[in-house]
Amino acid sequence: MTTTATPSYDALTATWLRLYRLGHLQSMASWDQAANMPPKGNTARGQALAEIAMLTHGMRTDPALKDHLARAKDEALSDAQRANLREIERNWFAANALPAELVERRALATSRCEYAWRTQRKANDWAGFAANLKSVLEVGREEARHLADRSGLSPYDALIDRFEPGMRGATIDRIFGEVKQWLPGMISRITARQASETTLAPQGPFDRAAQRALCERVMRVLQFDFDGGRLDVSSHPFSGGVPEDVRLTTRFRDDEFVQSLMGTIHETGHGRYEQNLPRELLGQPVAEARSMALHESQSLAFEMQVGCHPGFLGNIAPLIRDAFGDQPALATANLQRLLTRVQPGFIRVDADEVTYPAHVIMRYEIERGLIEGRYEVDDIPALWDEQMMTLLGVDTRGNFRDGPMQDVHWPEGLFGYFACYSLGAMYAAQWFATMRRQMPDLDAQISAGNLAPVFDWLRENIWLQGSRWTTDELAVRASGETLNPAHFKAHLEKRYLG
Amino acid sequence: MTTTATPSYDALTATWLRLYRLGHLQSMASWDQAANMPPKGNTARGQALAEIAMLTHGMRTDPALKDHLARAKDEALSDAQRANLREIERNWFAANALPAELVERRALATSRCEYAWRTQRKANDWAGFAANLKSVLEVGREEARHLADRSGLSPYDALIDRFEPGMRGATIDRIFGEVKQWLPGMISRITARQASETTLAPQGPFDRAAQRALCERVMRVLQFDFDGGRLDVSSHPFSGGVPEDVRLTTRFRDDEFVQSLMGTIHETGHGRYEQNLPRELLGQPVAEARSMALHESQSLAFEMQVGCHPGFLGNIAPLIRDAFGDQPALATANLQRLLTRVQPGFIRVDADEVTYPAHVIMRYEIERGLIEGRYEVDDIPALWDEQMMTLLGVDTRGNFRDGPMQDVHWPEGLFGYFACYSLGAMYAAQWFATMRRQMPDLDAQISAGNLAPVFDWLRENIWLQGSRWTTDELAVRASGETLNPAHFKAHLEKRYLG
Repeated sequence: MTTTATPSYDALTATWLRLYRLGHLQSMASWDQAANMPPKGNTARGQALAEIAMLTHGMRTDPALKDHLARAKDEALSDAQRANLREIERNWFAANALPAELVERRALATSRCEYAWRTQRKANDWAGFAANLKSVLEVGREEARHLADRSGLSPYDALIDRFEPGMRGATIDRIFGEVKQWLPGMISRITARQASETTLAPQGPFDRAAQRALCERVMRVLQFDFDGGRLDVSSHPFSGGVPEDVRLTTRFRDDEFVQSLMGTIHETGHGRYEQNLPRELLGQPVAEARSMALHESQSLAFEMQVGCHPGFLGNIAPLIRDAFGDQPALATANLQRLLTRVQPGFIRVDADEVTYPAHVIMRYEIERGLIEGRYEVDDIPALWDEQMMTLLGVDTRGNFRDGPMQDVHWPEGLFGYFACYSLGAMYAAQWFATMRRQMPDLDAQISAGNLAPVFDWLRENIWLQGSRWTTDELAVRASGETLNPAHFKAHLEKRYLG
Repeated sequence: MTTTATPSYDALTATWLRLYRLGHLQSMASWDQAANMPPKGNTARGQALAEIAMLTHGMRTDPALKDHLARAKDEALSDAQRANLREIERNWFAANALPAELVERRALATSRCEYAWRTQRKANDWAGFAANLKSVLEVGREEARHLADRSGLSPYDALIDRFEPGMRGATIDRIFGEVKQWLPGMISRITARQASETTLAPQGPFDRAAQRALCERVMRVLQFDFDGGRLDVSSHPFSGGVPEDVRLTTRFRDDEFVQSLMGTIHETGHGRYEQNLPRELLGQPVAEARSMALHESQSLAFEMQVGCHPGFLGNIAPLIRDAFGDQPALATANLQRLLTRVQPGFIRVDADEVTYPAHVIMRYEIERGLIEGRYEVDDIPALWDEQMMTLLGVDTRGNFRDGPMQDVHWPEGLFGYFACYSLGAMYAAQWFATMRRQMPDLDAQISAGNLAPVFDWLRENIWLQGSRWTTDELAVRASGETLNPAHFKAHLEKRYLG
């Protein structure tokens, strides 16, 4: 055994390296569960995943770690090591902040609520759902208080911090407050302008093998590394696996290919972030993706900034026609209209990039009020109806299924998550505003089929940075400022009203 | 906590249930590595599998287990619990019998030999291979002595016992000794008889999607449960996964479909054994498959006893023609000749069921001599050439690649394994002899497409028994006698000389 000057730091990194390696097996088993597993494997899979979760939880809550964390702070660490220690401590805090009995009650409440929700949603059964959600909210409030007591943050901030470290409700309030000022007016102007456009719907059926080949072809255009990842099919698309072996999923319908293609482009953004995290530190928390909003800034950079870019679309439209044969709806100009069609609707995950923030803002405001005790579960439908009418002009009364019952987040107790989606869209706009400032010919390059400037910038400024910096530091280093929603507004104005 | 009358037994079963659940993740990650994983995932996968192997090894070598094993023997156990305790102890012995440094030297020697073998085999480089194999043999002898000291068996018996518990070299000597008496003569008579037959080779290409669909169709005929398993592609076909979710693999060539189809039928036998192990005990060693030879008796029951049965073939030949279109070579009679063609050759895995035992017997005799110190690595080529000439009339001089370098077993240090293949073929013949005694219309049933009598018998007598009995006990309960190679001889005589 060699002795080092940083024994506690080394003990911590050894533990987290083991956790990383065991996490690999968890990730793969979870991916397989969604992409491959036949139904009769589910019970055994659940037991296996519970077993290793218990085991890794035991490693993260080993009492010896607390002393190591305290002592490591006084050890002679490099800046990178200190950043890693900060991330190790965040990870440790997440595992140790809650008493075991609360974790267990949380698991029971959320699994009961989520399981019942699957059928209650179809039946539009708000009353049944609300009864379970009340238990989830109760545990969520308790969780928030616990995390707040131990972190010194406010309860809701403590929940946000799990997903978006450093982000505060006050900041989101300011940002979303601005968006609410201009968004309804912008939506009206855009829909008025688009009312006179004619957009053709592509006519299926679209062969699934051809759809899959198209998706993989576009992933190659987006430089996804198939030697370090795959595309498969699951009922809910996601980006899984590990940085060394990224497993993306999509789903196909016979009558439609656009959702699957754009969904694949979205997941490819997540996937390339993972594939390009800093290799020399892989296995340590500092090498992990920075946050949920940053991750979403990559998927939306791919889906919205690049994927819906007219120059990019001009390059992949021939691939689309090559896959399915030509038809008027597959003309490049029509595809462009199809991808930038703005239409207020009920469903968040189906929303276009202009109306999407409205869905997020109202969820954010409602869940914040729920956690802070200003609202109760029974208040949700009225709040929902009012906000949907105000922000999107959509009447949701009585339609719980396509209203407050549409998302899995609340049944799963994921309070503090929703804002990340729109923060991600805003970060993505900010990255592209920065690129255009630094590379004035960026759009011409994209139109010419040269995506290297985009990927080089993202790799250098986001991907290779992992969790080396706080999100604010990373944003300033990359773009000269912290999150600034003006770039998102400018992006929408240019694309939809320019 | 409730107290029980069997605290040590309960502690042991709790540990082995955890090992079962963690083993689920190991099995799935290994299957994925062969069936899905892109090349860049391999290092991280290897590290993850090593991490969990170390972790489960730590659980199996926990010093507390030794006391529990001793105490559990005095607890009031049912017969089934006692059988489980016997299997737990076997598993514990396997993990604890060897000193850690020997395990490590073994891993180093075998991984170096196996890795170099992949290129040395292609280059026919016997000298290079032999140098590495000497290290593997040295460790293998040491391993055998250690296991012998701790088990009271002879060194080679101790190696066999890892794969085929209860089987002894003396028994195999007797059985293989008999086979050697009649096998060369039988091969001569069969090849002479077949010399006058005309057998057409099917003409490809054979569409891979059609091959896959055919394989799955035949798996359904063989009642593989696709709700509890899958068929995928890997470069070396195997049966993996877990009893609740069996993952079979095959491989396809454009110019040939028979190997893939018969290989799939073979793996389906392994798969159905796993899918039908006793459910109420699943998670405990007593619910696991009995042994390697028993497992092979199932795959060969499917491939040779059923798969090459003229009645069965009569039922699947239309599916084959349906998959690839009709051609003279796909006529049922020609397919039958193709599947029962006997031809001495170099390669064990390509051998027909008549010449296969010759390949096994010579390996068994050589490796036994190696472990017992009667032979050295440098003696192998001469022994090989002599045995191949005596048993099969094949001249292998100078062709090491297709001679003693063709198998991965010795590079991997798996001494004691080879015999199981032929013992499995003999058990399979014994099971079918028993079925025919009990159900005189068995062949008529198979020809009529009714496989239920076969599967019911196997389920009742083999699958549902798991590891409840020793192999000899199981054989006696199922067939009235321990392994009797006369049934195998009778099977070959009837099929090939009848």
